[in-house]
Amino acid sequence: MPAQMTPGVKKLFSEANLAHLATLMKDGSPQVTPVWVDLDGERILVNTAEGRVKPRNVRRDPRVAISIAGSTGYPSAFVRGRVVKVTNDGAEAHIDKMAKKYLGQDEYPWAQPGDRRVILVIEPEYVTGMMTD
Amino acid sequence: MPAQMTPGVKKLFSEANLAHLATLMKDGSPQVTPVWVDLDGERILVNTAEGRVKPRNVRRDPRVAISIAGSTGYPSAFVRGRVVKVTNDGAEAHIDKMAKKYLGQDEYPWAQPGDRRVILVIEPEYVTGMMTD
Repeated sequence: MPAQMTPGVKKLFSEANLAHLATLMKDGSPQVTPVWVDLDGERILVNTAEGRVKPRNVRRDPRVAISIAGSTGYPSAFVRGRVVKVTNDGAEAHIDKMAKKYLGQDEYPWAQPGDRRVILVIEPEYVTGMMTD
Repeated sequence: MPAQMTPGVKKLFSEANLAHLATLMKDGSPQVTPVWVDLDGERILVNTAEGRVKPRNVRRDPRVAISIAGSTGYPSAFVRGRVVKVTNDGAEAHIDKMAKKYLGQDEYPWAQPGDRRVILVIEPEYVTGMMTD
């Protein structure tokens, strides 16, 4: 069942805050790394690249969790949810949008030859926030 | 099998960087929230409180992952490992040490009546770092 994000939680995801995405390894153990994030209405988008651990993990088991915090660690929000779509459509343009958001650059500067970007679309199922307002 | 942390990774954990600790819920799905961290030689310490989700999760399944990054998201390190000890011994003094590290205060300012602190001792089994040096 999808959960609503409050305006305060959405603000955290809209600003250039680094998020930390947890996925599940094949043996069921957790893996977590920093990611750039975007909002698409009530869903959270993460742009990664084919061949990395995350797309492989979420195609096997779509259950994920995200932790995001302002630079001082406050406010913060924690989301548990599910990857409902894994898509290459629009993923190249989307990584440039993320470079703009996080780096202030029009184009993603670290593209490697052969990279194929992929978007993970995450539906929140459980949302907690520690907000200042 | 314990894994070694490089000096660069240890530096990230030694400085006042927020870490994000992933644990496993009862149904095997991941949970991740920001935590303060400390180093004890080759082990990572996380101070939390009894009654919270994390101690419950790691007593059931000790497999955890940690993501930590500098304020710009770089350098960063990702650890997968196992909680090898959950202890209340020294946990009250240790939360004050963490308040000093992260807040510059001699005493943890947010203690609640009845709080019982607990230290999770994490042994890294897999360490990756994206370092500037």
